[in-house]
Amino acid sequence: MAALSATIFTHLLVISIASLVLYWLINFREGFAFTSKVKPKIFNLHPLLMILGFIVFSGEAMITYKAFPATRKLLKLIHMILHLIALATGIFGVYAVFKFHNVSSIPHMYTLHSWIGLSCICLFGLQLLFGIVTFLFPGAESATRAKFAPWHIFFGVVIFLMAIVAAETGLTEKFFFLKLKQGQEALVVNFIGLLILLFGIFVGLTVAL
Amino acid sequence: MAALSATIFTHLLVISIASLVLYWLINFREGFAFTSKVKPKIFNLHPLLMILGFIVFSGEAMITYKAFPATRKLLKLIHMILHLIALATGIFGVYAVFKFHNVSSIPHMYTLHSWIGLSCICLFGLQLLFGIVTFLFPGAESATRAKFAPWHIFFGVVIFLMAIVAAETGLTEKFFFLKLKQGQEALVVNFIGLLILLFGIFVGLTVAL
Repeated sequence: MAALSATIFTHLLVISIASLVLYWLINFREGFAFTSKVKPKIFNLHPLLMILGFIVFSGEAMITYKAFPATRKLLKLIHMILHLIALATGIFGVYAVFKFHNVSSIPHMYTLHSWIGLSCICLFGLQLLFGIVTFLFPGAESATRAKFAPWHIFFGVVIFLMAIVAAETGLTEKFFFLKLKQGQEALVVNFIGLLILLFGIFVGLTVAL
Repeated sequence: MAALSATIFTHLLVISIASLVLYWLINFREGFAFTSKVKPKIFNLHPLLMILGFIVFSGEAMITYKAFPATRKLLKLIHMILHLIALATGIFGVYAVFKFHNVSSIPHMYTLHSWIGLSCICLFGLQLLFGIVTFLFPGAESATRAKFAPWHIFFGVVIFLMAIVAAETGLTEKFFFLKLKQGQEALVVNFIGLLILLFGIFVGLTVAL
């Protein structure tokens, strides 16, 4: 019952985050494009893919495993597929920001956001590979799986929280790059940050329950 | 054994964080003062007190309760006292930045960092009050305490992680206010951020073990 309420609230958060991010990037910013003379359109793919791809899908992967009614085998498959989607969108999102830096002659990897974010993606990839090999194909022996499971959960939560920290520092950076102060767009960006934090807390709650 | 190793490593992290923060604020910045014509000296009290006071002491309070060999009664007292020190330094640190804004005519509370940070301090105060009343003076009945304990731990971890997120967004803000790019000070600030993140992860690990 508590898990069900937490899950419903978490999905309401996802809808709010998705709406606010799209409203921000389309209404206040330039929209998105993979190739465009309007360079910020390339940048805008970055927050779009990292938030609505990487963070939302990895959160969903964690919730599903705890709260979705299905066989263990099916749950593992869904858990893996959602994480693979998260990783693919995450890599594409990182590629977009590197491309934007290149076409705009902005240096790479000098901020805390970039350090935490790229470490997070690398650890995410390792954790996913290790998880698939240990728990799915070929899958370790039952005793080994049982031994590794709590560490898989702990590192999974840590990497997910690193993604949340990366999002919050990324939004803070963008706030200052755009020289936002106290206008409407500033409120929209800050509320996206608050909602992502709440999403992280509720995914954590679902895992802890 | 694992808890002992985690605790030793966490304390090495505390020493590194303290050294780097002092090195940053004294060597690259103006040092600290509560009253000074050099206004940034007032600001500098803010990162000093929030990191070496609020975050370090609340982390220590959590670790102590798990890893320090003492009676339950004594552990609760130490846990409370360390949290009270954390709250006092936290409030003083927030006061310092409000004072700096006032003397410099900078608006208050318009960034994501300020929203997350102030929410964190308020929730911290509520959690501490609730914890003291439930577990110490006067203390609820045994069954009620047992019922509340897991929620006390969950919200404690959430509020601590909010403090970590506030620190990371705060360092990101300062990075841009100071217009740091790729120099030595930028590396020092970013490494403080990475070490605080690691500190958060290791405190979480100690609680989870």
